[in-house]
Amino acid sequence: MNSPEPHPITFRLDIAYDGTDFSGWQVQNSGISIQGTIEKAIEVLTHEAVRIVGSGRTDAGVHALNQVAHFHLATDTIYKDPSLLKRALNGLLPDTIRIINVAIVPKTFHAQRSASSKEYHYHLCFDDVVLPFVRPYVWHCRKRVNIDVLIEAAKLFIGEHDFVAYSNAPGRGCQRKTTVRTLYRLDVIRTQTGVRLEFEGNGFLYKMVRNITGMIIGVASGRRSIEEISTVFQSKDRRIAEPAAPARGLFLVRVNYGKVVV
Amino acid sequence: MNSPEPHPITFRLDIAYDGTDFSGWQVQNSGISIQGTIEKAIEVLTHEAVRIVGSGRTDAGVHALNQVAHFHLATDTIYKDPSLLKRALNGLLPDTIRIINVAIVPKTFHAQRSASSKEYHYHLCFDDVVLPFVRPYVWHCRKRVNIDVLIEAAKLFIGEHDFVAYSNAPGRGCQRKTTVRTLYRLDVIRTQTGVRLEFEGNGFLYKMVRNITGMIIGVASGRRSIEEISTVFQSKDRRIAEPAAPARGLFLVRVNYGKVVV
Repeated sequence: MNSPEPHPITFRLDIAYDGTDFSGWQVQNSGISIQGTIEKAIEVLTHEAVRIVGSGRTDAGVHALNQVAHFHLATDTIYKDPSLLKRALNGLLPDTIRIINVAIVPKTFHAQRSASSKEYHYHLCFDDVVLPFVRPYVWHCRKRVNIDVLIEAAKLFIGEHDFVAYSNAPGRGCQRKTTVRTLYRLDVIRTQTGVRLEFEGNGFLYKMVRNITGMIIGVASGRRSIEEISTVFQSKDRRIAEPAAPARGLFLVRVNYGKVVV
Repeated sequence: MNSPEPHPITFRLDIAYDGTDFSGWQVQNSGISIQGTIEKAIEVLTHEAVRIVGSGRTDAGVHALNQVAHFHLATDTIYKDPSLLKRALNGLLPDTIRIINVAIVPKTFHAQRSASSKEYHYHLCFDDVVLPFVRPYVWHCRKRVNIDVLIEAAKLFIGEHDFVAYSNAPGRGCQRKTTVRTLYRLDVIRTQTGVRLEFEGNGFLYKMVRNITGMIIGVASGRRSIEEISTVFQSKDRRIAEPAAPARGLFLVRVNYGKVVV
């Protein structure tokens, strides 16, 4: 008698990580990736070699308050209880990666394709001193910045645009059919020591948040005129935009599934 | 003609540090201390070998939002402008130690003896998962804790007591005439993931905050009865109290000079 074909169970992981010491989300030839570290832990527990699919990549040094990923296990796995899998994974993973939640989801769930929008926060500190406790999580921007100009500059990125000039060429094996994306909001929130830029969009190109932030600061610090934001858009040429803001200030904070709330 | 005797200038430093990678505040035979690291930076800048005097020691792994220290420089120092000294020090020091403020103060100012009270915060997390970003700054307490009992236990430490049973023997070269101290307040503040214990007192014995916190959690988790708090006080015997809470959750947050506000 043939054994029945295994019907894989689909798991959703909600993950927080400090990206400081990782080569980024995605498994690469060199460096320790967050994806690879989690895959190894799942394999140790289940004896199944799995590939986990994230909602998208994050670069080296970028953090996540809530990244989402999915993967499949065989029907006869002993980890049918998601809370057991969560505890076991957190026991194996380093303190810098935490599984916030594990859930069994319909087979149709896909962490990347099912996502309706994503939210990123970028933290900027304009004070002369950054406290040690937040140092790995902010861009210490020593330029003299005009906040009113910063707010005006941020508005020009909201809406549907071809963001190709504000993105870097994607890495190997990463295709993109279109570079048009919609930014639903880009809120500038004042904090005790600077500002937090809150981005929400239907998708983000490679380095798009960091490139936009770099350009906004270029304008707000007077290096570039506010008119150059649309000049760069129209040029479709990454090389004439400002340098990207550093990775350490960037957090993936939420991936939304289902209806987009704007 | 004899040169006039140098009239030393007294500087006050306000310092924040992440204690994780240091052997504590005080210069010791082994390990890298916060005091020693700052003294070395001052010597590099001024060519004067100085001894800085802190408001008190903090143990290995304990953090400070605002430690205070003082030291003297010769009258002819080129660092008469405190903001210049601040910038130069922050340029030399590691990111884990930040000089928040430098001020020239009267010669009578003494960081330890002039202090009227000190404030410490102890951070506890009771959630099953601690986010990576706060991991070095909380005690992840997995015991089942009764918050009402915790609040009642905390009250029993407020006021003037002989805290000898809630302190460890001081290190070499550290004398104490009396072990009687006054705790002006011990507030229990609920946070998103646990509680913050806020201590303010006229002085703190070695490991006093961590020992009190350990005992409070012993009682709140049901390991010890609430009556044992006074039994331990009366015994004057450290050995019958609970183990100290871990260093990582503890912050020196403020040193007050002048009138005590309770």
